[in-house]
Amino acid sequence: MKTQKNRLIGIDIGGTSIKFALMDDAGTIEKKWSIPTNIAEKGKDIPKEICDSIRTTLEDARLATVKGIGIGVPGPISPDGKMVVQAVNLDWKDLPLKEIIETDLGIDVCLLNDANAAALGEMWKGAAQGKANLLFVTLGTGVGGGIVLNGEVLNGCHSSGGEIGHIPIRSDEQRLCGCGGRNCLETFASANGLALSMRKKLKEVNENWPEITPPIVFEKAAQKNVHAQAVLAEFTDILGQALAGIMNTIDVEEIVIGGGLSEAGDQLLLPLKKKLEQYVFPQIKAHFSVKKAQLGNEAGIYGAVYAYLTNNDCL
Amino acid sequence: MKTQKNRLIGIDIGGTSIKFALMDDAGTIEKKWSIPTNIAEKGKDIPKEICDSIRTTLEDARLATVKGIGIGVPGPISPDGKMVVQAVNLDWKDLPLKEIIETDLGIDVCLLNDANAAALGEMWKGAAQGKANLLFVTLGTGVGGGIVLNGEVLNGCHSSGGEIGHIPIRSDEQRLCGCGGRNCLETFASANGLALSMRKKLKEVNENWPEITPPIVFEKAAQKNVHAQAVLAEFTDILGQALAGIMNTIDVEEIVIGGGLSEAGDQLLLPLKKKLEQYVFPQIKAHFSVKKAQLGNEAGIYGAVYAYLTNNDCL
Repeated sequence: MKTQKNRLIGIDIGGTSIKFALMDDAGTIEKKWSIPTNIAEKGKDIPKEICDSIRTTLEDARLATVKGIGIGVPGPISPDGKMVVQAVNLDWKDLPLKEIIETDLGIDVCLLNDANAAALGEMWKGAAQGKANLLFVTLGTGVGGGIVLNGEVLNGCHSSGGEIGHIPIRSDEQRLCGCGGRNCLETFASANGLALSMRKKLKEVNENWPEITPPIVFEKAAQKNVHAQAVLAEFTDILGQALAGIMNTIDVEEIVIGGGLSEAGDQLLLPLKKKLEQYVFPQIKAHFSVKKAQLGNEAGIYGAVYAYLTNNDCL
Repeated sequence: MKTQKNRLIGIDIGGTSIKFALMDDAGTIEKKWSIPTNIAEKGKDIPKEICDSIRTTLEDARLATVKGIGIGVPGPISPDGKMVVQAVNLDWKDLPLKEIIETDLGIDVCLLNDANAAALGEMWKGAAQGKANLLFVTLGTGVGGGIVLNGEVLNGCHSSGGEIGHIPIRSDEQRLCGCGGRNCLETFASANGLALSMRKKLKEVNENWPEITPPIVFEKAAQKNVHAQAVLAEFTDILGQALAGIMNTIDVEEIVIGGGLSEAGDQLLLPLKKKLEQYVFPQIKAHFSVKKAQLGNEAGIYGAVYAYLTNNDCL
């Protein structure tokens, strides 16, 4: 007989703050808090500050009932799940985070990449509930991705599964990507990419806007500005083609779109779905959904806990 | 104590012939044979002819020792593994092939797509031995693909996993694909696509060749014909970019290239590897291999048997 639900902690380490949630194995949150991310000295104090924050926030009796901790990290995790291979924003490289936290707190830890965590979170408690195969896409400053197949994250042989922001796009341009490549998807389909495309277009047509941000581009397009419309059409075409290529490769049942650009809602999603329908393989057409992410920046803490639970057969 | 190895039959149904092999669970072939594919009347007699051929080729005593049959089919298999959703070349649609063969012969059957079978075959007995994560690519009349993750085929939610020939390529051209789409990868990177590109180039430069086939294009390029070299450079760039995009999505450890065009060997593989190195995500660079398929048209029969064995926990 199951007399008591398991308690778990979900953690999402971001570049500016670290989010925590204490929840049960049904995903009901008992307590949420956050601390600033201390990136000083190559982020060396972050693991200790995470443990200290948990200890000071939860009294000993509650801490003793915590069965496991799931942590979403902004970087790749080694295939064995023990190391943070790299986290550029935290200045981490080859950090054995699982062992550090386990040794300090005496609680089992499950590490995963933050985009993968968000994908699992949306599947467990968000837009993709009931699905076991999905592509999660974040359209933010960059473009990130998380792939779930048969309920499990595709981490990949080099921790690069779902790095869809770096799919190369054929183009006459030479957009430099943060990864060192040229014309990666994220140089076109991120917030920065969209703003760059808009700037280029305005220069070309000799028009001036006082400010160029993605919300302004969407607003101008809604107001029938033909240049904003043309830039968004191209944006949607590039993104739709790339996502269709992914669909024709991994053939999942749902695409969940998160990140800042997803706030445009149907103004982005409806034309994107149309492009996808144009480009996917005939058997997939009309048999998949494109949804806006539901959990915002809480997706990661849910997904981290879910990963812990499934990795330890607790669900 | 295991007193006797299991006997299995691998079958590869092609558009012109159906290949059979009787082998043990270590993949040692005891007998091989083939029959022509009878595509008359929507291929309705094919299942019966398969069963008849097995019965007439193997005497009853041997047939009684056959534990299972794996069948590679030139089309998508339903996610439950029971139906051939469609096989254009055989004119099949929604055929319950598993049940038909099982009822006729009284032997368990495992169905899978032929490209997926070839991928498994190369993993079990060919170029990808020892790997559990790979992308198999056939560059033939069309472009096909099979993806293996953690030793298992990615069949997909709509039986379209690995349909990489239909990844859309950004291009000013309007190449019509057999699937109804435009500018699918296979309209550029197949034998037909390569020949078309060469024809276009020769027309453009006002040069005439008596015949244009992929081997001739490779031969001319080896003889320093600049037009053939330019066409192959573009071919390799398009294919390399597309495969890099797949690598950045599924992050496997090996790409195996089969199909007629792979006969060009290093003349194709070396520049292709170079392009891949240019386009893959930094963490993948230099950590994956690109190999020529080893089993030719026997990959499918090996892979079909392997799929049967793993699906039934016999390995």
